[in-house]
Amino acid sequence: MQLLGCDVAALNTVQFSNHTGYRQWTGSKVSSEEITELYRGLKQSYLDDFDMMLSGYVPGAPALEAVGRVAGELKERAETKPGSFFWVLDPVMGDNGNLYVTQDVVPVYRGLIERADLILPNQFEAELLSEVKIVDMSSLGRAIDVLHERYGVPHIVITSVSLSHPDHPDSSLSVVGSSMTSDRRSRAFKIVFPSIDCYFSGTGDMFAALMVVRMREAVCATPGLQEKTSWLSDDSVDALDLPLAKAAEKVLATMHEVLTKTAEGIEETVKKAREGVARETNGDGNKDEQKKTHLLKSKAAELKLVRHVDSLRSPTVEFRARKM
Amino acid sequence: MQLLGCDVAALNTVQFSNHTGYRQWTGSKVSSEEITELYRGLKQSYLDDFDMMLSGYVPGAPALEAVGRVAGELKERAETKPGSFFWVLDPVMGDNGNLYVTQDVVPVYRGLIERADLILPNQFEAELLSEVKIVDMSSLGRAIDVLHERYGVPHIVITSVSLSHPDHPDSSLSVVGSSMTSDRRSRAFKIVFPSIDCYFSGTGDMFAALMVVRMREAVCATPGLQEKTSWLSDDSVDALDLPLAKAAEKVLATMHEVLTKTAEGIEETVKKAREGVARETNGDGNKDEQKKTHLLKSKAAELKLVRHVDSLRSPTVEFRARKM
Repeated sequence: MQLLGCDVAALNTVQFSNHTGYRQWTGSKVSSEEITELYRGLKQSYLDDFDMMLSGYVPGAPALEAVGRVAGELKERAETKPGSFFWVLDPVMGDNGNLYVTQDVVPVYRGLIERADLILPNQFEAELLSEVKIVDMSSLGRAIDVLHERYGVPHIVITSVSLSHPDHPDSSLSVVGSSMTSDRRSRAFKIVFPSIDCYFSGTGDMFAALMVVRMREAVCATPGLQEKTSWLSDDSVDALDLPLAKAAEKVLATMHEVLTKTAEGIEETVKKAREGVARETNGDGNKDEQKKTHLLKSKAAELKLVRHVDSLRSPTVEFRARKM
Repeated sequence: MQLLGCDVAALNTVQFSNHTGYRQWTGSKVSSEEITELYRGLKQSYLDDFDMMLSGYVPGAPALEAVGRVAGELKERAETKPGSFFWVLDPVMGDNGNLYVTQDVVPVYRGLIERADLILPNQFEAELLSEVKIVDMSSLGRAIDVLHERYGVPHIVITSVSLSHPDHPDSSLSVVGSSMTSDRRSRAFKIVFPSIDCYFSGTGDMFAALMVVRMREAVCATPGLQEKTSWLSDDSVDALDLPLAKAAEKVLATMHEVLTKTAEGIEETVKKAREGVARETNGDGNKDEQKKTHLLKSKAAELKLVRHVDSLRSPTVEFRARKM
């Protein structure tokens, strides 16, 4: 976000030694009291004039409620000036059918998304929020309808959709997005892109951070849209012409470039690391060997962000939004 | 640092709502236990292979001792591979004669600088470390001699030196640096630059972060130097040709550009803010009015970093190192 020109005030919800994909870590989580106190500190010094807020992983229901109160207050204050505050909510709960937060976090997110401007669930999280079982593109469409209609969420992007469809080649993934009309109907698009066979961590956070920047950029390109509540395009605007679609195209272009470049050379690194570990542990394939190999693989797969500034700043859009 | 291509693992020593120049803040400080735990977490997942470490403000003597143990361990491990680890220590203790840490922090820093490769004290901190009262350029030179000789600090840059001298025009500041010879003699240079009449916060941190990048860059430009202990240049290298001097020139060029651009428009912003505050408080110049004006001034003076990427990446060097 900073590389793309945003002045960011970061509130760290955890301070961990490393991401949890390593399966071991040390460090601490922020408490709900500290979130509330930090926001009070910002307010008392007139530092709470944010244009946008991005919330990601929040540890536990009480802390999430505290984040919700901050966003709620910022939204309320912005009511007299439509479009002056935009909340991007990434409802981090789990992936591929596994919940990695406690069960009580789910209803809190269901309560919060009503105030969000854009939500970025993955397929599993979209299911949890909408309570629609997603098994194919049509049930995915129904989940989006529920999120627009019942919760009034203006913009939705469902990340890493893996569903078969005549349009979807093998080993492809999709991102599906929609900005609602004035009567809460969906305007859905999808972007299909080749998946890279490598386990990356942090792609959700990267997607969210880039969406913040690219959504604002796309909205600013449409005169007057920034002054509309939740930056909602006129009903006459087609799904493929939505700023949300333009933003998502650009974000995916960056993601694909950075992930491709990260994947280059990983195999070689991992192979060397595996050999080194095998020598050290006499290659008996024991638990220690497996663990060390996993750790070195995780490290090799760390997203190479700062080395690929050009891909962050000016990616080449290759995968275009299509009608659902 | 990220803008300049560094992969950074940040250990936050505080999580505050804002910098302390506002004179009020909320948030928390890290404990010595958490520092130690985070480092243990990095080690157990093979994530402690750092090329450089930058330490800045550390809250209290026990936490500083924990930072010292981390740096000590990294240095020790690097002993078999000279030049493979470089510790930049910014001994944050105070400024302009005022200590803003507790008294017990001072001797801890005196103990730690023996292991540092480059220290970045301001004039007051150089005095505290060397125990030489600095009143003119010649006592400043003596302080540098003590730091090289007694403590064996390889590289020193003293930031924001404000001492009169025929070379120094009114309202100028200097940075004074030195890399020691093999027999611990100083090779000192100074860079004189115009000061900007505005109270900025965070310039020390900005200077330190940039020095990390530029020092490495300058050292890499000299074949073989990266494999020398503490990246110390041969005795035949003149003060003005030191990588440290080249690095400091580039850092100051960036600083001057960013500070100049930050200062542009501040006056107008502050004037407007002052008028707004005066209207609100009926212009009776009371305590509330003074406080609010100070807060808005502090905000207006926040360094404009992300908007001036070009100045960070490729500044124009205008102020050159000169012999002391």
